[in-house]
Amino acid sequence: MDARTAAAAADLAEGVALHAFAARLYPICRSITGEGVRATLRLIRARLPLKVHEVPSGTRVFDWVIPPEWNVEDAAVLDADGRRVIDFQAHNLHLVSYSEPLRRTLTLEELAPHLHTLPAQPEWIPYRTSYYQRAWGFCLSERARAALSPGRYRIEIRTSLAPGSLTYGELALPGRSREEVLFFTHICHPSLANDNASGMAVATALAEWVAREPRRFSYRFVFAPGTIGSLTWLKRNPARLRHVRHGLVLGLLGDPGALTYKESRSGTREIDDIAAYALAGAGRRIAFSPYGYDERQLCSPGFDLPVGRLTRSVNGGYPEYHSSADDLALITPTALADSLDACRRIVELIEANQRYVNLKPRGEPQLGRRGLYGALGGGAPGAREAALLWLLNQSDGTRSLLDIARRSGVPFAELREGARALERARLLRVTGARRPSVKRATKRAARASKIGRSKS
Amino acid sequence: MDARTAAAAADLAEGVALHAFAARLYPICRSITGEGVRATLRLIRARLPLKVHEVPSGTRVFDWVIPPEWNVEDAAVLDADGRRVIDFQAHNLHLVSYSEPLRRTLTLEELAPHLHTLPAQPEWIPYRTSYYQRAWGFCLSERARAALSPGRYRIEIRTSLAPGSLTYGELALPGRSREEVLFFTHICHPSLANDNASGMAVATALAEWVAREPRRFSYRFVFAPGTIGSLTWLKRNPARLRHVRHGLVLGLLGDPGALTYKESRSGTREIDDIAAYALAGAGRRIAFSPYGYDERQLCSPGFDLPVGRLTRSVNGGYPEYHSSADDLALITPTALADSLDACRRIVELIEANQRYVNLKPRGEPQLGRRGLYGALGGGAPGAREAALLWLLNQSDGTRSLLDIARRSGVPFAELREGARALERARLLRVTGARRPSVKRATKRAARASKIGRSKS
Amino acid sequence: MDARTAAAAADLAEGVALHAFAARLYPICRSITGEGVRATLRLIRARLPLKVHEVPSGTRVFDWVIPPEWNVEDAAVLDADGRRVIDFQAHNLHLVSYSEPLRRTLTLEELAPHLHTLPAQPEWIPYRTSYYQRAWGFCLSERARAALSPGRYRIEIRTSLAPGSLTYGELALPGRSREEVLFFTHICHPSLANDNASGMAVATALAEWVAREPRRFSYRFVFAPGTIGSLTWLKRNPARLRHVRHGLVLGLLGDPGALTYKESRSGTREIDDIAAYALAGAGRRIAFSPYGYDERQLCSPGFDLPVGRLTRSVNGGYPEYHSSADDLALITPTALADSLDACRRIVELIEANQRYVNLKPRGEPQLGRRGLYGALGGGAPGAREAALLWLLNQSDGTRSLLDIARRSGVPFAELREGARALERARLLRVTGARRPSVKRATKRAARASKIGRSKS
Repeated sequence: MDARTAAAAADLAEGVALHAFAARLYPICRSITGEGVRATLRLIRARLPLKVHEVPSGTRVFDWVIPPEWNVEDAAVLDADGRRVIDFQAHNLHLVSYSEPLRRTLTLEELAPHLHTLPAQPEWIPYRTSYYQRAWGFCLSERARAALSPGRYRIEIRTSLAPGSLTYGELALPGRSREEVLFFTHICHPSLANDNASGMAVATALAEWVAREPRRFSYRFVFAPGTIGSLTWLKRNPARLRHVRHGLVLGLLGDPGALTYKESRSGTREIDDIAAYALAGAGRRIAFSPYGYDERQLCSPGFDLPVGRLTRSVNGGYPEYHSSADDLALITPTALADSLDACRRIVELIEANQRYVNLKPRGEPQLGRRGLYGALGGGAPGAREAALLWLLNQSDGTRSLLDIARRSGVPFAELREGARALERARLLRVTGARRPSVKRATKRAARASKIGRSKS
Repeated sequence: MDARTAAAAADLAEGVALHAFAARLYPICRSITGEGVRATLRLIRARLPLKVHEVPSGTRVFDWVIPPEWNVEDAAVLDADGRRVIDFQAHNLHLVSYSEPLRRTLTLEELAPHLHTLPAQPEWIPYRTSYYQRAWGFCLSERARAALSPGRYRIEIRTSLAPGSLTYGELALPGRSREEVLFFTHICHPSLANDNASGMAVATALAEWVAREPRRFSYRFVFAPGTIGSLTWLKRNPARLRHVRHGLVLGLLGDPGALTYKESRSGTREIDDIAAYALAGAGRRIAFSPYGYDERQLCSPGFDLPVGRLTRSVNGGYPEYHSSADDLALITPTALADSLDACRRIVELIEANQRYVNLKPRGEPQLGRRGLYGALGGGAPGAREAALLWLLNQSDGTRSLLDIARRSGVPFAELREGARALERARLLRVTGARRPSVKRATKRAARASKIGRSKS
Repeated sequence: MDARTAAAAADLAEGVALHAFAARLYPICRSITGEGVRATLRLIRARLPLKVHEVPSGTRVFDWVIPPEWNVEDAAVLDADGRRVIDFQAHNLHLVSYSEPLRRTLTLEELAPHLHTLPAQPEWIPYRTSYYQRAWGFCLSERARAALSPGRYRIEIRTSLAPGSLTYGELALPGRSREEVLFFTHICHPSLANDNASGMAVATALAEWVAREPRRFSYRFVFAPGTIGSLTWLKRNPARLRHVRHGLVLGLLGDPGALTYKESRSGTREIDDIAAYALAGAGRRIAFSPYGYDERQLCSPGFDLPVGRLTRSVNGGYPEYHSSADDLALITPTALADSLDACRRIVELIEANQRYVNLKPRGEPQLGRRGLYGALGGGAPGAREAALLWLLNQSDGTRSLLDIARRSGVPFAELREGARALERARLLRVTGARRPSVKRATKRAARASKIGRSKS
């Protein structure tokens, strides 16, 4: 097996593992609170030393209040013969999320306003929620709806809405700097594979990889329910926000669509350039809009964090979105592995994208006597020499390697290698580089060593 | 009659009224001073409570001096048989404006240098002036010129050039703020319908409409002779200039050409964005140039006011320009009504284009419990909800509604409605909004109530 | 002979003279030090009062050290029959520049690593150097290389590498201001006609012309070896650098390619706009890159001078580059004259591109009474009047004539004439213009008068 075949085989194996983990997450009935969230975090915690937080119902979170915890024992609509014509046990999308408990018999006419279908897709069950307004309802396929004959139906919703808590998981991976890179993934959707079993699987694998790598930055992975979960995290971490240097919301990472980077609120943050460069030729960049996932909260004007979003298709952007057709057949090992790979490329760029200062800025230093330049003059410089000349010319402390890559057309990897060679030759120095105190670095490394080694 | 037909009928009626008023203004022999200007302002004053200013000849106005007042009793060229072969009574363009008085008999050869024609348009009489250099002359069609046989001609120019004054009219419509919107229209051209009976008619109707509307800004309409008139107004209002927030020079508003917005000197003022947005799809935007109408003075570097210009065709941009063919047949009720409509849209945008601050900027406020967001989650947000999310995300006090409209693609009107709803819900507040003192507002309203109510 | 034919004849004569001077420079065996450089400067000094500097071997120059001086008495490879099969006397490119002295007999196999050819161009001799690493070698055509039969060869390299000096020439032409315009030309290449006998010929003729013209700026022409020569000049002139307002590296100015302006390091200096305007329609503008000629040093981050580069083809950009095919047949009188003409246009723009302040900025001044505007109104303004209006409107001290030319579309020459007319009318004044002290100006003129008058 040659190197290329070996790499392809490794990618495939990685994709298969990602899909298998997504498949374990998929069946759980999640919502913004409740046992489904806890079961989900237990699966992730088996791989990552997540810290799990429980925040009580009733806690004020900015303009919101954490709602009562919702749990489902069972739910069904039964016909006159006692058959479960709509059955939560068959598919957890059948029950509108946060439906209040109910036992009642209704005519079909009375029941009708509580039934939700997708007429354009008669085989699919839609996904609907009513978190903050007491209500109940069922979702079903249009075909199933058409099969309901007039008559009386027994509604059995055995749910509980009671004081409890909102649950989220958090993993901090300290690096040499206190500056943080934040990854956010929503964990509130029930049986929808792309949205967001895929995102949870990729984020988990990414965190394992980051934990094993040397880190300039500290990294934080938050697995939390959408909206109320990110708001809760924001509320509880006011002092941490100023340390967030880069961030990415992850979700919808398993469908066959092209990778899509959505810009931060201003579209001019370093993460915007980094993600666009990482995806060049393999994805697209779209403008910010205040709708989507937790970037809505992270990029609200009072926080305005330097956070973008990585998905494949976007919310509302594929036919199966928010329906039972967003199942395990929609997501593929290839797409999942490709998404994870893009995330790793982004992390590598984040780590390497430093600004340097030329320590011999007056004229060119004599590269030849340092073995960095061909001895025989007269011919054209090679790619490596061009990289060195660009680095020396542009490194006045204001330009990152990525800035130089974009201006010069020299690949980033070539510049990174060149910068290392010039650092070794004492011709470049990282801007504002301070040696981290040995004590602090040791302490951090000790904390970090507890995780991420268990599994390759 | 349905609503759409009714609106079309109202537009037509408005256009017919505009054309009728232009037709009353058209025959008057105007120049930069004299009775023609006064007669013009009397017609406008019958509709608007203009303040009319008289500024004496000889007054220094920056680099200029107000010239002697010019009036015409009669003017003609008579042939040997006493026939008026060129006759001011037949068309006031026949006499070069500011021609000095003269009674003399000349050969055709001697007369020739004083005759002006348009050889390319043999039926049309050109328009020529000699305001600041003593001269005399006649304009006539090339055809009429060709018919003049050699021989002697009697020149009879019964004009007066004597100390008098320059006359202009001004209407101030106070609003809640002292900040002003300035409209400028030139009133110095004789029988030229588009240039500028059309502009005077549209400006008059616009002022009537503004007078009836609630006003955030104060408005000022100046009806003045070109160049020397705007210079005179500038000279006499030094303290007022810093209050001019937006301005528009109006002219050439009746021909069938597309609406044309000419940018302010920098092209980056708010009025530039507003006018461009108001004309989107229905007109064009052209760059500033230091030639044209009174923007030459208002946008000179010593004033540099935020003033653009609205015309249909531009100066020099249509064949009939500055000739007798610029007559009442060139301007149409449809074009006049369309121009007035564009002016009103611009005023509405000026009034509504505020900057807001999100009062709950940390995360999204919970729109659902305020009835501003659909209760059932899972589906895509509607257009109104998208407008609210954009407003909340972008309102950090630095962006106007128009900035948000251009970034988001949400129509301005949708954003304006959304901003009102969010203001009512105490989620947005206008930036720098101060309550106007009740006393002052009452006083202003009292002054304003005297006008604009007479006519719908 | 009409004016146009006369101009063409003058251009041709100028081109022929440029080619003749290049032909005198071409045969000399130059390197970065040695008698070839001195012989070159003697030829230039016969036309310009160059100051010639000698800087000793061993002098530290930033990160570099001036190497021993290299001179060649003779060099050849002789076959067993004593025939000079590779002969420095036949072409000075045959010897690798800075080859150390050697007398030795080698087999062809042992000799092979020291032979350099251009396999893709079997008739051409390449140009190679080894300035900073002791080595020796020969360059020859691939065809000649193929003809070498196995056997023993006698190597005779009679060169000297000994303490001496680096030589460069400098001409300062004082102007009314101490601010300088810097022209840099490399003089280190041996028999290569385009690179850089052409540049030396054009720079010499340009300096003669500048010396005869009135000068707002001071001008400095440096004729120096590449890299080590510009570094030496930079090292010896630290106080002068802050006076460099514009600069241009000249080279490769005789080949038939289009003129090419290479931007300064930032691409946003005035010289960038000036050169681009001067070349509009007759050349191209390319982005900065840190490879090429002495712009590498002048534009290094520690100096970052406002210096661009003018060539026709670029380094590495034509097949004959750095080979014996870069000979006198490659460069043409037409191209040389065209290059000189472009240089003169650039100097004229540098001299004339001033910023003005409108002295009557409030409104338009009355041009008519100053004879600057047609007396009879009503027609369109002419091109000259448009130029005056643009100048008055834009001259607030922030915009140069070139800025105005680019915004308005009015040709620069028209604006320059207009600015002079408005200066005479006391309507414009040069920004920050100070009268140079009469004493100082006289002194400078005295010094300048010694040169450049000898030859037209």
